Amino acid sequence: MRSNEANWEMIRFDNTGDSNETSLVAVEMPITIHINGSEFATMVCSPSNLKELLIGFLASEGIIRSYSAIKDLAIDIDTGYAYIEIDHLPTTFHQDHSKRFIGSCCGKSRQFYFKNDVKTAKTILSKHMISAKQCFYLMHELQQSSSQFRKTGGVHNAALATTNELMVVRTDIGRHNALDKLFGHILVNNVPVHDKIIVFSGRISSEVLLKLSKMGIGILISKSAPTNLALQLAEDLKITVIGFVRGYQMNVYTHPERIVRGT
Amino acid sequence: MRSNEANWEMIRFDNTGDSNETSLVAVEMPITIHINGSEFATMVCSPSNLKELLIGFLASEGIIRSYSAIKDLAIDIDTGYAYIEIDHLPTTFHQDHSKRFIGSCCGKSRQFYFKNDVKTAKTILSKHMISAKQCFYLMHELQQSSSQFRKTGGVHNAALATTNELMVVRTDIGRHNALDKLFGHILVNNVPVHDKIIVFSGRISSEVLLKLSKMGIGILISKSAPTNLALQLAEDLKITVIGFVRGYQMNVYTHPERIVRGT
Repeated sequence: MRSNEANWEMIRFDNTGDSNETSLVAVEMPITIHINGSEFATMVCSPSNLKELLIGFLASEGIIRSYSAIKDLAIDIDTGYAYIEIDHLPTTFHQDHSKRFIGSCCGKSRQFYFKNDVKTAKTILSKHMISAKQCFYLMHELQQSSSQFRKTGGVHNAALATTNELMVVRTDIGRHNALDKLFGHILVNNVPVHDKIIVFSGRISSEVLLKLSKMGIGILISKSAPTNLALQLAEDLKITVIGFVRGYQMNVYTHPERIVRGT
Repeated sequence: MRSNEANWEMIRFDNTGDSNETSLVAVEMPITIHINGSEFATMVCSPSNLKELLIGFLASEGIIRSYSAIKDLAIDIDTGYAYIEIDHLPTTFHQDHSKRFIGSCCGKSRQFYFKNDVKTAKTILSKHMISAKQCFYLMHELQQSSSQFRKTGGVHNAALATTNELMVVRTDIGRHNALDKLFGHILVNNVPVHDKIIVFSGRISSEVLLKLSKMGIGILISKSAPTNLALQLAEDLKITVIGFVRGYQMNVYTHPERIVRGT
């Protein structure tokens, strides 16, 4: 696994003068994905956990539904190419997907809720609950774990958690990539999701909500803010959105029936 | 112009209990772009300055080179559709672009530096200079102007500036959209760029650098962190990247010859 960080020589200025220093910056790496011999997409990402990223990305895109659909997956990290063989491509594959570029900070070329997503987004039926105290603790743990953010200032973190602890933390310069890495982890390891929670550093956009729905997870905890479209989707898809989790405060925007009161 | 903000009823929890409150959240709006009768892309964005956004987006995508290429532009804000007529489409238009979804937080389906961007990205020849004091002042002004961020926590800001003051500030839930709105403003108003600066709230990714290069602007000031790929591009394209501008501190990562020393 390559490092997510690199050194860069820079000049620091303040109001007294300037000095030459070495700064740690986040590594951004392009990776071009070939599926069954055809170029599918180019994305930029942090170089850690690339296998999980690719699997989660393909699942988010609706290309695969399970890890077993992948016959072969090879990553050439030096050239930035990934070669994936898939058993049964969806019949719409060649129509839906042409060559395109996937951005670092979000999922590109994702099907949009108002179009194809309406078919793949799942309403979440889980009745699993969480208390405010548990939310505060999980966010505190995420922030403790994110040493890279403090060093480079350039990455997002997402964790898969039970109500009591973080299970897996994934990091990427792309908000959506961090979530796709968790999605890949879930698929590769067959992790049951009905009692799981996503703890996230990034803003809650409509795409983040759709991803939660595809993962099958009903509770999202973020230190950042949601958009109105994300909240409308969360209402429909029955996902509990908890935003602005900072210290001992948090806002529950949707489906508060999953919050344990009075503890 | 629609509001960039909407009310949402939510429940605020702290360690003493909970209360029902109304929260202001950022509006995220999908807009589907038709070019000469064909569906081109769907993006999500903040609803302000949509005309500038569309023009800047088309220029970023290489579909137009000047405002005069647009024969007609109509936006139906209620249905979220934009209809654009362009005089001379690039011959590669139908190969390069199929239907796809443009994310809220970055430019999707953008051509990547290592492929087509190598043709369109321009090296910046401007010798225009700025002092550290001017950088501190411009970032301070951007933060003062961003009242929406303080209210909703969900948007990015970008400003076109001279060395002495902000000229135009644009806001969007998408980092790249905020920059595209400035690009659109430059094209519509024929703003000379050789002596201009971009002041930005977002992280500096490779895509942000490419956008600066297409706009023809040589100095980028951000309160956030750069990636290593962005810095490599900035070296090549001769763009001065100033990051982590906070209070009276800043880091100059590339092309410090544009910084006035000792003032």
